[in-house]
Amino acid sequence: DSSLKVFTLNSNPKLAEEIAEQIGTELGKCSVTSFSDGEIQINIEESIRGCDVYVVQSTSAPVNQHMMELLIMIDALKRASAKSINIVMPYYGYARQDRKARAREPITAKLVSDLIQAAGATRVISLDLHAPQIQGFFNIPVDQLVGVPILSEYWREKGLEDIVVVSPDHGGVTRARQLADRLKAPIAIIDKRRPRPNVSEVMNIVGNIEGKTAILIDDIIDTAGTITLGANALVENGAKEVYACCTHPVLSGPAIERIQNSKIKELVVTNSIPLTEEKQIDKIIPLSVAPLISEAIIRVHEMQSVSILFD
Amino acid sequence: DSSLKVFTLNSNPKLAEEIAEQIGTELGKCSVTSFSDGEIQINIEESIRGCDVYVVQSTSAPVNQHMMELLIMIDALKRASAKSINIVMPYYGYARQDRKARAREPITAKLVSDLIQAAGATRVISLDLHAPQIQGFFNIPVDQLVGVPILSEYWREKGLEDIVVVSPDHGGVTRARQLADRLKAPIAIIDKRRPRPNVSEVMNIVGNIEGKTAILIDDIIDTAGTITLGANALVENGAKEVYACCTHPVLSGPAIERIQNSKIKELVVTNSIPLTEEKQIDKIIPLSVAPLISEAIIRVHEMQSVSILFD
Ligand SMILES: Nc1ncnc2c1ncn2[C@@H]1O[C@H](COP(=O)(O)O)[C@@H](O)[C@H]1O
Ligand SMILES: Nc1ncnc2c1ncn2[C@@H]1O[C@H](COP(=O)(O)O)[C@@H](O)[C@H]1O
Repeated sequence: DSSLKVFTLNSNPKLAEEIAEQIGTELGKCSVTSFSDGEIQINIEESIRGCDVYVVQSTSAPVNQHMMELLIMIDALKRASAKSINIVMPYYGYARQDRKARAREPITAKLVSDLIQAAGATRVISLDLHAPQIQGFFNIPVDQLVGVPILSEYWREKGLEDIVVVSPDHGGVTRARQLADRLKAPIAIIDKRRPRPNVSEVMNIVGNIEGKTAILIDDIIDTAGTITLGANALVENGAKEVYACCTHPVLSGPAIERIQNSKIKELVVTNSIPLTEEKQIDKIIPLSVAPLISEAIIRVHEMQSVSILFD
Repeated sequence: DSSLKVFTLNSNPKLAEEIAEQIGTELGKCSVTSFSDGEIQINIEESIRGCDVYVVQSTSAPVNQHMMELLIMIDALKRASAKSINIVMPYYGYARQDRKARAREPITAKLVSDLIQAAGATRVISLDLHAPQIQGFFNIPVDQLVGVPILSEYWREKGLEDIVVVSPDHGGVTRARQLADRLKAPIAIIDKRRPRPNVSEVMNIVGNIEGKTAILIDDIIDTAGTITLGANALVENGAKEVYACCTHPVLSGPAIERIQNSKIKELVVTNSIPLTEEKQIDKIIPLSVAPLISEAIIRVHEMQSVSILFD
C-alpha cells in the first residue's frame, strides 16, 4: 500500500485543510510563493517519492496564476518521483470555452486538459464540469463529482414548503430535475425569448410557480445577471418567494451588488471557489464539499492500491 | 508561396508594430481581452488558413497572464488551420528555473517548452536565452538571436575611450568577451567571494580597470542588486566611470531605485521587455530589436517557403 499525501496550492487552502483532516492526514509541506518579478516559485518540503499525491487547486480567479501554479506543481511532483499525481480541481476554469462558437476561436477548456496532461498529471477529480464533454478532452481518468446532493440536503433540512425547482435556462433542465427529484418537487423553466431582433428579451415561465416557493439552480453564477433577472421575473409572475443555489460561485464584476438588490432571499453555494471577504454577505451561504471530495479521494486511493495487487 | 502574418498579444505591442512595419505588412487583426472573471478571450478577426503566422509575445510580467495568452492564441491558430505557428518570444520567462538546484524543485523552463509544444507551436524565435540548454528542451526548431551586436553598435557610436568590458560574475564571461571583441577592448570579471560563512561577500576584481571606462554587461537585470553593487565596486577600485547594458530589462522590485542611486551613468537595454512608465528614466536607454527580429522572420519565412518546393 503506497502512502497518500494531500497538498494545497493557493486557490483553496481552507478546503484542502478540511479534506486532509477528514482523510485523517495533514497537508503536505510545500511553499508556493513568487519571485520579485512575479515568477512562481514552488518548493516541496517533504519527500513524496512513490506516493499517491492529491493536489487541491481550483482554477478560479486569478485563473492564469492558479493555472500556472498547478502546472508547475505537477512538474515538480513528476520530477520528485510521485507514484501518481491526482489533481483535485473542484472548479475547472475556462470550462465555458468548450467549443468553437465562432470561427477562429480557441477551445480553451481542451487546451487546459492538454496542458495538465503535458505537465504530467495522472488523474483529475472535478465537480460539476460545465459541460460533460470536458471529461472526454482528457486521456487520463476524470472523476466527476456532483454537487446536487449537497445542495438538496440543505434545502431539505431548511424545510421549505410548496417548492418548485426552476432552471434559469433550457441548458440547466437536467440539473433542475435532479434537484427536484430529491426534493420531490415539480420543475419550471425560464424561457428567454427575443420576440423580434432589437426588442428586449421576454422572460416566459414554463410550468406552474403561482404562490410557490421557487428554488433557482445553476452550475456557475458569474456576473449573476441571469439568476437575478430570473428571480425577479419569478416574483413578478406570482412566485411567493425565491431562493437560489449553484455549485460554483464565480461572482465576478457586479454579481454581489446584483444579488443584494435582487429578490433572491438566500443564495446557497459550495466552497469549490472560496468567498473572498467582500463576498461574505448574509444572503450567501457556503456549503463545504470537503466530505464529498475526501470520500472520493479515499475511494480512488483504495482502488489504486488494490490495482497494485493485479499488476 | 504562403503568406506571412504577424500577430501581437499584450506583452509587446509596440515592438510587434515595428516588426510588422519593417517586414512591410500590417499586424493581423485580433482582440485579446478578458471576461469579467479574468478568463482570457481571444478573437482572431481575419482568416489565417494556410498562413505562416508569427506571434510576438514576451513572457514578461505579468508572466502567468502572458503565458496563458500565448498558449490560448496558439490553440486558436492551430484550430484555424495556420500552416505554421511561429512564436517570437524575445524574452523567455521562467528561463532561470532551468535545472533542479535542490531536491523536488520544478524545472519550469522545461515545463514552459512542453506547454508551448502541447498547445501546437511549430517554431520558436527567441533572444539571448538565459541558458543555451533551453534550446534543447524543445523538439521543434528554436532560433536563438543574439543581442550583443545591437548593444556593441550603441557603444561604438558613443565613442567612449579606454574601455574595459566587465562581467558581473563568472557565468557571464562569454558574453562579456563577445562585446569586448566587437569593441576591441579587454575584459575584467567581478569575482564575488565569501571568505568565511556568515561574513559578507567581498568583490574582488580580476583584470585591470584602473582609470578605465567600464561597461558592465549581463543578460537579465532583475532586481539590479548584482549590477549596482558591481558598479560601485568598480568605482571604488579605481574605474573612471561605469556604464552598463543588458538584453532583458526585467527591472522588478527595487531595481529602478537602485539604478538611480548607483554609480552607473547609463544603462542600455533592449525592448525585449517594454519599459513601463515608471521605468522610463533618463539613465535607461532602450534599443529596438525590431530590425534583428524582422530580419530573422524574413529568413525563416523564405526558408519555409523554399522547403515547400521539396516536399
Ligand atoms: N469566462 C467567461 N465569462 C463569460 N462568458 C464566457 C466565459 N467563457 C466563455 N464564455 C462564453 O460563454 C458561452 C458559453 O456558455 P454556455 O453556453 O453556458 O456553455 C460562450 O459564448 C463563451 O464565449
Ligand atoms: N524569477 C526569478 N527571480 C529570481 N531568482 C530566480 C528566478 N527564477 C529562478 N531564480 C533563481 O535563480 C537561480 C538561477 O539563476 P542563474 O544561476 O543565474 O541561472 C536559481 O537559484 C533560481 O532559484
